[in-house]
Amino acid sequence: MMSVSVCRVAHFNAAHRLYNKAWDFEKNQAVFGKCNNPNYHGHNYKLEVWVTGNIDPETGYVIDLGLLKSMIETEVENRFDHKNLNEDTIEFKDLNPTAENIAMVIWNRLNAKLKDDLSLRVRLYETERNIVEYAGH
Amino acid sequence: MMSVSVCRVAHFNAAHRLYNKAWDFEKNQAVFGKCNNPNYHGHNYKLEVWVTGNIDPETGYVIDLGLLKSMIETEVENRFDHKNLNEDTIEFKDLNPTAENIAMVIWNRLNAKLKDDLSLRVRLYETERNIVEYAGH
Amino acid sequence: MMSVSVCRVAHFNAAHRLYNKAWDFEKNQAVFGKCNNPNYHGHNYKLEVWVTGNIDPETGYVIDLGLLKSMIETEVENRFDHKNLNEDTIEFKDLNPTAENIAMVIWNRLNAKLKDDLSLRVRLYETERNIVEYAGH
Amino acid sequence: MMSVSVCRVAHFNAAHRLYNKAWDFEKNQAVFGKCNNPNYHGHNYKLEVWVTGNIDPETGYVIDLGLLKSMIETEVENRFDHKNLNEDTIEFKDLNPTAENIAMVIWNRLNAKLKDDLSLRVRLYETERNIVEYAGH
Amino acid sequence: MMSVSVCRVAHFNAAHRLYNKAWDFEKNQAVFGKCNNPNYHGHNYKLEVWVTGNIDPETGYVIDLGLLKSMIETEVENRFDHKNLNEDTIEFKDLNPTAENIAMVIWNRLNAKLKDDLSLRVRLYETERNIVEYAGH
Amino acid sequence: MMSVSVCRVAHFNAAHRLYNKAWDFEKNQAVFGKCNNPNYHGHNYKLEVWVTGNIDPETGYVIDLGLLKSMIETEVENRFDHKNLNEDTIEFKDLNPTAENIAMVIWNRLNAKLKDDLSLRVRLYETERNIVEYAGH
Repeated sequence: MMSVSVCRVAHFNAAHRLYNKAWDFEKNQAVFGKCNNPNYHGHNYKLEVWVTGNIDPETGYVIDLGLLKSMIETEVENRFDHKNLNEDTIEFKDLNPTAENIAMVIWNRLNAKLKDDLSLRVRLYETERNIVEYAGH
Repeated sequence: MMSVSVCRVAHFNAAHRLYNKAWDFEKNQAVFGKCNNPNYHGHNYKLEVWVTGNIDPETGYVIDLGLLKSMIETEVENRFDHKNLNEDTIEFKDLNPTAENIAMVIWNRLNAKLKDDLSLRVRLYETERNIVEYAGH
Repeated sequence: MMSVSVCRVAHFNAAHRLYNKAWDFEKNQAVFGKCNNPNYHGHNYKLEVWVTGNIDPETGYVIDLGLLKSMIETEVENRFDHKNLNEDTIEFKDLNPTAENIAMVIWNRLNAKLKDDLSLRVRLYETERNIVEYAGH
Repeated sequence: MMSVSVCRVAHFNAAHRLYNKAWDFEKNQAVFGKCNNPNYHGHNYKLEVWVTGNIDPETGYVIDLGLLKSMIETEVENRFDHKNLNEDTIEFKDLNPTAENIAMVIWNRLNAKLKDDLSLRVRLYETERNIVEYAGH
Repeated sequence: MMSVSVCRVAHFNAAHRLYNKAWDFEKNQAVFGKCNNPNYHGHNYKLEVWVTGNIDPETGYVIDLGLLKSMIETEVENRFDHKNLNEDTIEFKDLNPTAENIAMVIWNRLNAKLKDDLSLRVRLYETERNIVEYAGH
Repeated sequence: MMSVSVCRVAHFNAAHRLYNKAWDFEKNQAVFGKCNNPNYHGHNYKLEVWVTGNIDPETGYVIDLGLLKSMIETEVENRFDHKNLNEDTIEFKDLNPTAENIAMVIWNRLNAKLKDDLSLRVRLYETERNIVEYAGH
């Protein structure tokens, strides 16, 4: 059978601060610069969720994008939209919310909900110029 | 030799309806929802056609993008632009015109015209938030 | 008081056919070309709804964009999204669904719901390259 | 002489919380919903700064866009980028940082630096779907 | 009758150099910086052509966008696309090809072809961040 | 360890002419058409630089995007922005500046500066519709 990838795009707006709790302020400032602002800054995150699998001959779908949209709402938007990632979420209580780590957390949450015969890749735009991508390996 | 990918972007605007002729209206409605509107709805499809191959040392081209543009006009735009995919095309007479199936049909049409030493990948945006990709395997 | 404009963006995907019922097919074909396809074609319409008024000093809002979003859902998206404009709507039963006429219909529907001290302008993208704008006068 | 408008686009990423200090939490929650998160959320703000005036016949410029870019860096980006608007800025210490109010603050700061024969309009994108515009009157 | 604005978007790719022939190189370098490169640089120009007028009740059009597209091809694209504005065009032989001046030249060319009951506005994107707009007054 | 890709986007605006010095004008015109204009034309090039590697557990970064931004400024923007690629650069003195060749030159320059445990892929947009991608093999 033929393998096709499908993508659903979503957005969430969140505050965050980049820092390593094991370091003092000076070292955090040297490494993370203005991203280390103790009062936080924020972003409009754009998320692409790519799912790869076979086309179901009855529906013509790899996965119902309405179902994928709901899954993203439950696993990503409801948890992270209009939140402070450092303060309001369990995932980033002890994990630095860099775009890389956010993408990995999102991949892990979504992949746990996907059927085994589907593979997953997520792309996260922190800004129009800073992007990350993770496929689970 | 080095392998490079090049892409030409195209657009076509079409009407379609998603349904499985083997199912009754209720089942189609349950699966396809508002996409099952018997009077059709429509989209501005955006198509990326990616061709991978070696750079010709005389031209500096993998493929002349003007040639690729013409190929897309003949194989895709002239057939599907301002058409009703279900009613006006042979390809979707008995094939549900989901984005997945449209991408596969386009890939098959274009690949038949490409030289053997070039490989092909197509990405189709049904909307800004619903995207599919197919590379022929 | 100072006057500020605010905008909410929405989308709807619809099928349509451009033709004048008073003309024969040949004249319609001469004027509307491929847009006159009797089986319809379709578009992803992008809509910008701009509302101008004073800032409420208590909220800092001209209008609650959540309220405006709901108004657009009720007056525009629920009526036109995934519809055949010619066949499924009262508005375009006898009105040619050009982008100009769609913009005027949307303006009239939304303006009827807005408070008198707010002024309205709508911009409608039929494609990325064809856009119309209407402000009610 | 002929009047032309020129625009420079800029960006800043900031955290904010929408609330009225004169109201209790319940009323703020009813009016501002998830935007009232006490731990803040954030956005990538995109700013268009439009300046209108006559073309200088010697340069062909209304205003040197390099100069306008520097002015935006000084008056907007250096003050608001990677900041918490509520906590880190004087402007929003007692002013709710809605998009409307942010646009007015930016307009006032920039207009104070522009020559009298130039007029100013600012457009601020809080998200791709929420936009405001202010021209000083 | 009601007045509506319609827009057609076009593109052209051109080389140019910004300088004032009456000045020496040092003064040009001080004013135009890297834009004064004697060997030229270049841009993808994006052009929005906005036409305002009444809707023709028979067609539902302010102006046939296919006609407007042809007019832009003749008056703008065929003259400026893949050209060196300073070297290959009459218009900029003695006029500095700033975005402001290019917009005025385009407006004058297009306006001469438009019927008197239509008004014209052009917006020219030199880059995503540098934009100009001209409406003839 | 898990491998993540990160991307930084950059831009440069340049003039170029496509031609093969070993061919006469007629043959160049037949192959390169309007891109063979002896006076050059130009583009706004958009560049995506993708770097793949493991996440550093202390920073949460694959690579500091500020560092990658500086590397792109030094290796790409300072060399090619506001330049005539054929006339002002060593790289394209004897190499036809097609998008394919520009992408390879950029890849080679950037890859020479990257640590060995990181892999590199560049995507270059010559226009919104013409794109190339190169990953070094």
